[in-house]
Amino acid sequence: MQVVVWNENRHEKTNPVVADIYPEGIHGAIANFLKEDEIEVTTATLDEAEHGLTEEVLKQTDVLVWWGHQAHDEVEDRIVERVHQRVLEGMGLVVLHSAHFSKIFKKLMGTTCDLKWREADDKERLWVVDPSHPITEGLGEYIELEKEEMYGEHFDIPAPDQLIFLSWFEGGEVFRSGATYQRGKGKIFYFRPGHETYPTYYNKEIQTVIKNGVKWVSPASTPTPTYGNVKALEQITEK
Amino acid sequence: MQVVVWNENRHEKTNPVVADIYPEGIHGAIANFLKEDEIEVTTATLDEAEHGLTEEVLKQTDVLVWWGHQAHDEVEDRIVERVHQRVLEGMGLVVLHSAHFSKIFKKLMGTTCDLKWREADDKERLWVVDPSHPITEGLGEYIELEKEEMYGEHFDIPAPDQLIFLSWFEGGEVFRSGATYQRGKGKIFYFRPGHETYPTYYNKEIQTVIKNGVKWVSPASTPTPTYGNVKALEQITEK
Amino acid sequence: MQVVVWNENRHEKTNPVVADIYPEGIHGAIANFLKEDEIEVTTATLDEAEHGLTEEVLKQTDVLVWWGHQAHDEVEDRIVERVHQRVLEGMGLVVLHSAHFSKIFKKLMGTTCDLKWREADDKERLWVVDPSHPITEGLGEYIELEKEEMYGEHFDIPAPDQLIFLSWFEGGEVFRSGATYQRGKGKIFYFRPGHETYPTYYNKEIQTVIKNGVKWVSPASTPTPTYGNVKALEQITEK
Amino acid sequence: MQVVVWNENRHEKTNPVVADIYPEGIHGAIANFLKEDEIEVTTATLDEAEHGLTEEVLKQTDVLVWWGHQAHDEVEDRIVERVHQRVLEGMGLVVLHSAHFSKIFKKLMGTTCDLKWREADDKERLWVVDPSHPITEGLGEYIELEKEEMYGEHFDIPAPDQLIFLSWFEGGEVFRSGATYQRGKGKIFYFRPGHETYPTYYNKEIQTVIKNGVKWVSPASTPTPTYGNVKALEQITEK
Repeated sequence: MQVVVWNENRHEKTNPVVADIYPEGIHGAIANFLKEDEIEVTTATLDEAEHGLTEEVLKQTDVLVWWGHQAHDEVEDRIVERVHQRVLEGMGLVVLHSAHFSKIFKKLMGTTCDLKWREADDKERLWVVDPSHPITEGLGEYIELEKEEMYGEHFDIPAPDQLIFLSWFEGGEVFRSGATYQRGKGKIFYFRPGHETYPTYYNKEIQTVIKNGVKWVSPASTPTPTYGNVKALEQITEK
Repeated sequence: MQVVVWNENRHEKTNPVVADIYPEGIHGAIANFLKEDEIEVTTATLDEAEHGLTEEVLKQTDVLVWWGHQAHDEVEDRIVERVHQRVLEGMGLVVLHSAHFSKIFKKLMGTTCDLKWREADDKERLWVVDPSHPITEGLGEYIELEKEEMYGEHFDIPAPDQLIFLSWFEGGEVFRSGATYQRGKGKIFYFRPGHETYPTYYNKEIQTVIKNGVKWVSPASTPTPTYGNVKALEQITEK
Repeated sequence: MQVVVWNENRHEKTNPVVADIYPEGIHGAIANFLKEDEIEVTTATLDEAEHGLTEEVLKQTDVLVWWGHQAHDEVEDRIVERVHQRVLEGMGLVVLHSAHFSKIFKKLMGTTCDLKWREADDKERLWVVDPSHPITEGLGEYIELEKEEMYGEHFDIPAPDQLIFLSWFEGGEVFRSGATYQRGKGKIFYFRPGHETYPTYYNKEIQTVIKNGVKWVSPASTPTPTYGNVKALEQITEK
Repeated sequence: MQVVVWNENRHEKTNPVVADIYPEGIHGAIANFLKEDEIEVTTATLDEAEHGLTEEVLKQTDVLVWWGHQAHDEVEDRIVERVHQRVLEGMGLVVLHSAHFSKIFKKLMGTTCDLKWREADDKERLWVVDPSHPITEGLGEYIELEKEEMYGEHFDIPAPDQLIFLSWFEGGEVFRSGATYQRGKGKIFYFRPGHETYPTYYNKEIQTVIKNGVKWVSPASTPTPTYGNVKALEQITEK
């Protein structure tokens, strides 16, 4: 399996707090723990040529992990189209935190993907609501994060195909924090936590979820549909 | 309730077969039977200014019915954006037949919406698979159409929120023919039949489904979510 | 529309706190506000003959509202069978609060319907997560209840067909508080609030939800499927 | 992984046609091809003590495959309860063909699970409608069976969590042929084909689906929820 972790990588360059927490960038931190599972992992960032997502790279990518926040608009539409097509062809996509507002996620969802938010050190508790789902493997009944950015409902997404986590926030809100979707041959997993000013991606349980998510969205050799004008498989009576 | 029936209205101008079947246009035929239910119905077509879908018109529209086929690309993107926003605000949308490839449906679905097709006078039988759904009110167990264009799986759509009809085709294919989706505050109903060279929209059962669909997608005074930065509703402990 | 509000009606007889809050019983309180909508409402309780749910009564019932708690086991299996069959035939069912553990709900769900709970005056906030749904008509973004019993995840139910409310609880839990299901021709709405020691059913917003729920589950003249051995509709080739 | 293939094993004893096709029983045929995947497979049948499904056996079973037809009623309720509990605890369940009417499937679904049927050598074509699903791995766009029993809609089941196959039948019907459900920690896959008088379980593509299904429903170390009275995780304000 070939995984690419994509990161905007801008906060890391301008905000010393973020740079301190993630000296190798958020992409670096995520790539590091994914490698523990003997998965082939590379990274790609916004400021690389073609944002690091050339045709060549994407063709060989089984799963793309996406983190973005302040520069969604700088992602070129042609690259978004390219990623979109690869998802429909079967490439898995893990969408993290503020990437709810990424062009690729909005395009796949068909909605605004808007939500409520607050940066106030809310405690967050993510409850497992589907304990049959492989993405919850190795977890307890909930994950607790001492401090995180709050995301609150209404989250303007289509009803998830599968709802896996629900978040409780100290300030009084709830959020559908873990959700899966199927689009074309591709599988998508949205997972909420991971604001840049908190060390969330070092949390072992969060890492477990992301590892499980990568595994769950990874493609299999499923049938490739054909489209367009087709001959009848059975005799049609003249009328 | 204010309904607008939108039609591309091109086949009617260029193909005498279609003009013969639908002398008032497909939009006219649909508007006529909707009016039987004492619904306020107007029509709009591609070649009108702003395709007949001005800000003013859309603001007052509760339900938009959409038929298009050969000129999807001529629908201006800014009008598509306008319709999209209105759906998310709660305007109902009924998408008919070849409008599976309309810009607005593809934008709402996030997939290619591609399918198999054949113009060969297939018999079609639409089976009700959700007999609890109000859209099936007044129907029997299936609707039979002597001749229709075939649409076959795989239909590249997200898994429907509700699957209501499945079509059997004489030539050997099946199709998810009636499906609903929720996007933002809006409800969407896709219904398959209605190729321009057949008198499908004069079929009483097909009319019943479209009437029921219009009623089902119509908006109610449901809450309008607010988004963005919010204050905490509960005290947050300093950490 | 004919509605029957069913209540166990035991707490009211033995607990003066409950009797004080609901002098006409929980069923009386619910029936009273439903009548405001000019709906025909009667009540039925556990200690009546056949629990008040004779064949005759059920045959004429469009929607059954169910509240039970400490005496689920005293509901006779043959009456549960009768209600079950009527739901599959199209009778709507609104399941309230502790009726999550009723025989009829467990039979319809196929799971234990177990959950976490606590009687500790938790504040509850029910967030709307599907603002397109008619059950949310007339509401704001959330409903706040100063004091309620807590119900927490994991709630052992099948993934809802539609998830409408999520509850936040002061003590740190979340809960899928409003959920719909389709079973046979019947529609089911589960709604969480309503512990017997709180005046929850006098809350106007809670009343709005229950009124909307009753309306939403009410039956329409949808097709009645036939089952069993059938003749072919098309010629089958001899093989 | 430990798989148990359960079969009623009655047709094999009384109908020479079936005995000819399945000399080792339907369970034997299924066990044989599952073993190709180096899975530990045993079998169990109705006429064994406790139907071969002792507490001991079930405790060690990861996936149970179920085939039954004429003797559903002879399966003891206490064994059904036992299987039900194991499914909720996480044991996977693959339900084949006429087992749609088994006690265990009906109990898990909460509906009659009734359908239309015909034994008339219909051709069946199973179309893949979810090409993202691992259960379709290794397949083409459809599976064709020259002769099978027909099952037709309406199939009285809850809306599937995931719909994977739709069948076309020569005689004019359609059917939701491959469907998944989650109940408690358990995953369930219903797959239609396999009437006892046809050699369906020797078909390589059908075998692929069942192998994939067994793999897909197999349990993982997901969290085991706790239920009942719980202490608050956060401070609750006195009111």
